[in-house]
Amino acid sequence: MSRAILLVDCPDQVGIIATTTNYLQYHKGNILDLEQHVDDSTGHFFMRLEWELSGFDIPQDRILEFFRNEIGNRYQMNVELYFADVQPTMAIFCSKMSHCLYDILYRIQSSEWSVHVPLIISNHPDLKYIADRFEISYHHIPISKATKLEQEKRQIELLRENNVDLIVLARYMQILSSQVVEAYPNQIINIHHSFLPAFAGAKPYHAAFKRGVKIIGATSHYVTNELDEGPIIEQDVVHISHTDGIRDLIRKGKDLEKIVLSNAVRHHIERKVLVRENKTVVFN
Amino acid sequence: MSRAILLVDCPDQVGIIATTTNYLQYHKGNILDLEQHVDDSTGHFFMRLEWELSGFDIPQDRILEFFRNEIGNRYQMNVELYFADVQPTMAIFCSKMSHCLYDILYRIQSSEWSVHVPLIISNHPDLKYIADRFEISYHHIPISKATKLEQEKRQIELLRENNVDLIVLARYMQILSSQVVEAYPNQIINIHHSFLPAFAGAKPYHAAFKRGVKIIGATSHYVTNELDEGPIIEQDVVHISHTDGIRDLIRKGKDLEKIVLSNAVRHHIERKVLVRENKTVVFN
Amino acid sequence: MSRAILLVDCPDQVGIIATTTNYLQYHKGNILDLEQHVDDSTGHFFMRLEWELSGFDIPQDRILEFFRNEIGNRYQMNVELYFADVQPTMAIFCSKMSHCLYDILYRIQSSEWSVHVPLIISNHPDLKYIADRFEISYHHIPISKATKLEQEKRQIELLRENNVDLIVLARYMQILSSQVVEAYPNQIINIHHSFLPAFAGAKPYHAAFKRGVKIIGATSHYVTNELDEGPIIEQDVVHISHTDGIRDLIRKGKDLEKIVLSNAVRHHIERKVLVRENKTVVFN
Amino acid sequence: MSRAILLVDCPDQVGIIATTTNYLQYHKGNILDLEQHVDDSTGHFFMRLEWELSGFDIPQDRILEFFRNEIGNRYQMNVELYFADVQPTMAIFCSKMSHCLYDILYRIQSSEWSVHVPLIISNHPDLKYIADRFEISYHHIPISKATKLEQEKRQIELLRENNVDLIVLARYMQILSSQVVEAYPNQIINIHHSFLPAFAGAKPYHAAFKRGVKIIGATSHYVTNELDEGPIIEQDVVHISHTDGIRDLIRKGKDLEKIVLSNAVRHHIERKVLVRENKTVVFN
Repeated sequence: MSRAILLVDCPDQVGIIATTTNYLQYHKGNILDLEQHVDDSTGHFFMRLEWELSGFDIPQDRILEFFRNEIGNRYQMNVELYFADVQPTMAIFCSKMSHCLYDILYRIQSSEWSVHVPLIISNHPDLKYIADRFEISYHHIPISKATKLEQEKRQIELLRENNVDLIVLARYMQILSSQVVEAYPNQIINIHHSFLPAFAGAKPYHAAFKRGVKIIGATSHYVTNELDEGPIIEQDVVHISHTDGIRDLIRKGKDLEKIVLSNAVRHHIERKVLVRENKTVVFN
Repeated sequence: MSRAILLVDCPDQVGIIATTTNYLQYHKGNILDLEQHVDDSTGHFFMRLEWELSGFDIPQDRILEFFRNEIGNRYQMNVELYFADVQPTMAIFCSKMSHCLYDILYRIQSSEWSVHVPLIISNHPDLKYIADRFEISYHHIPISKATKLEQEKRQIELLRENNVDLIVLARYMQILSSQVVEAYPNQIINIHHSFLPAFAGAKPYHAAFKRGVKIIGATSHYVTNELDEGPIIEQDVVHISHTDGIRDLIRKGKDLEKIVLSNAVRHHIERKVLVRENKTVVFN
Repeated sequence: MSRAILLVDCPDQVGIIATTTNYLQYHKGNILDLEQHVDDSTGHFFMRLEWELSGFDIPQDRILEFFRNEIGNRYQMNVELYFADVQPTMAIFCSKMSHCLYDILYRIQSSEWSVHVPLIISNHPDLKYIADRFEISYHHIPISKATKLEQEKRQIELLRENNVDLIVLARYMQILSSQVVEAYPNQIINIHHSFLPAFAGAKPYHAAFKRGVKIIGATSHYVTNELDEGPIIEQDVVHISHTDGIRDLIRKGKDLEKIVLSNAVRHHIERKVLVRENKTVVFN
Repeated sequence: MSRAILLVDCPDQVGIIATTTNYLQYHKGNILDLEQHVDDSTGHFFMRLEWELSGFDIPQDRILEFFRNEIGNRYQMNVELYFADVQPTMAIFCSKMSHCLYDILYRIQSSEWSVHVPLIISNHPDLKYIADRFEISYHHIPISKATKLEQEKRQIELLRENNVDLIVLARYMQILSSQVVEAYPNQIINIHHSFLPAFAGAKPYHAAFKRGVKIIGATSHYVTNELDEGPIIEQDVVHISHTDGIRDLIRKGKDLEKIVLSNAVRHHIERKVLVRENKTVVFN
């Protein structure tokens, strides 16, 4: 039995919930889950609806069109529709550090996530042995200042050939230029190894050590054209003390990065994240 | 503008959400918040609905009756109805330790909570000076094995005279007998100073120290006739180490108890808690 | 039986621990606790020693002089000496928010801390009723741009008359000018309501809400002439979500601020904190 | 440059620290780190000392003997001596779940830990492909009630042949009988998937779900003959809510188990753990 997942957001108005749930019921859709949120500061409404497709009397390939015509347009809704049995297609970008890559591949191999990973892209050859181990195609695409735009075009080509709709930057140590970012809006997830907005930019653990903070963090966010400024999906922290040198921060940080990135990816895969004005709503 | 809050639970069936929201919309109730949950292990449905009363076309004092007749009975719902502008009336029970009592009274005085506290009941006279400071009536009702049932009758009388509908045991070191417990089902909130079910019973910090755990906890739960076995509302923990002696556990535990108890009480006051079969659903 | 507490730091060298402990043993000082740390990045050594004074054969008022002459100078040590039975004398500064003030006064009243509080200073009259309740002298010293330096002189006078050696800024919403800061180096503890260095400056909860972070924090630090840049003593965080508006952040933040500030003050009172180059070593 | 690590514990007496540090200094041992603890409830003293071997004037293979004769016996010390450049030799036991095994092997492969792993032992063949991937010998030793004691003898033989001095039970779903436990006292580390002592025994996540707790935990401990009762090395927890079914608890628990087990193993490998009377002292 498959399920449909609808994500909508629109200016808040009277009657949205009743109208929408009534529409689904009228078409014989059994609602399995409903989560909604109103941002009081902007008067904006967000909702995630999940219902059974078996018995639903609108053909699957016309649901989006029908819903937009009959409900969405009336409320000026942004609408996204997903089907639980259609796996996202994910590309992983990495550089030389393996901890996040390994962690992600393990979760996929052990079926913790329902996602298809046709390729790994890296600017270094170092982690090819891991891709081999998990039998995933590994594309080494070196990047230099001079070649960046050209090489990114190759990346985009590969992503398109593979119908990728989610890119996970597993400690990919390159800044994506706008041609990539804009081709995949709210579809590129990065892990930054600090509690943003603290210590944005390079070498956050060194900066944290220098400042003498008592907590370090990690932040997973969608990538936008503003470096380290995209909508935050997930953050977590770990306590440190004066006994922790930079190497300890890096070690503790790795465990944190794995958890924070994987939680963000899971929320995305389960279609729990809505983005608006650089902020996220992440339903349970 | 006042709001109504409806808490319902029933066996899960197709159409509950749509039917209920449609009913409210039909009667011109603007839904402000909806949270629902299905426990897959039991097939039971839970929902919390909040809507504006202004414009709603059922008189306030007949909403419960109408809703039961037209919706509730059809789905075998348990229904509770509250109004956001009707404050709960809370009694606090304490013994000799003041930290939770102080914490609660501070929250009320600073308007963090919207609740009315007509009385404090204690088996000891020690904390009367605090009640005086906050100008709340303090009833010293000593308890001995011989007098317990009789003295509890006095407690119940006082609670009834004051129309109490929530009792908070702020480290009240007496076990309530069933006459009190049954008069206030899911209306008595206790704080137990351990991570239940670990270290139930007396002296949990001593037991934790003896066992050499690396974390201590606190648990807030509704009181039932089974000691320390009632539905858990909130739990939290704090890390400890070999450097912490029993006095440190007690000190760290106090800060934890204050937070855990106050969070549980807040959830209750905001009508976010549903209870079924010794477990709670605590909405956001 | 009283105890002496020695805090030392110096460039790391061979033999410091053995020499120091041997010195104390030679003078019949029974060592109760020793904690030491070497910062590998700077090669600097830190140590805290606690020993019994009963039996110690150097007169209490000459220990510092003797130790400096015989040990400290040889290793270029910074040396501080405290006696466990000499209570710190603390002044509390506050403005209009009462949560931290209340929390601190409760800890003192319930003997959680061993500290003497002769006065509270505020730029507003609002919290005088709390000072009265705890029977502590309350000095209302209004501050305007024009009067600031003059009024701070009155503050310093009061602090000196009362032999204050620790100032706790319990959400005191004024920036202290350098005449106060420099009169009390590493003796003024502030609570900032964000996870510094994120959201320094005014209105951090508003900034956090705007940025859409998933965690908020609080930071307690010694005050220096650089605003929000002093050595960090303690930090903690709490998770938030899209359901939390600014009022929720403020509410959750208050509980956090109380804990973080009180932990920092406790570390200071127990003489567990050493400061060097804008960072702290906080022993267990 | 190698380092020696000394772990001692004994009844607390005057002069232990000074005498010991003086002894090392006399023999030209430069102390790099000293941590000590006195358990006030039992009057027992614990210390960990780390010093440079270069320049130390006692031959490495006689340090233990000399120290015992000249210091240890006088204070009735239990003494353990390690050398930082001698790697522990670790065996991993597993059954069918791979998450902890993978996590450990990844840490070793990426040189996070300095440890030698000559073999993996399992009662099932399922995870052999992982051992192959990491090129570690995998011994499938099936266990039935009837064969248990005999098969454990084979296990012990293998452990001895490989000079194993640390056994990590990475979700090994068999109870070790006393012949194994007693051959490796305080050398077998287990991960239990609950916050012990809550939910000891089998199926702790099911028990936690049934009880309706709001937090789940994991506990890493040394294995003794009392099931789930050995000295606790590390514990941690994660918050859950009514939205988490048993599968969610299992998923969240896996991430927790990995972290808690790996932290416990790291503490052990770094020789930071002392055990006494079923409790641990875990230095920083």
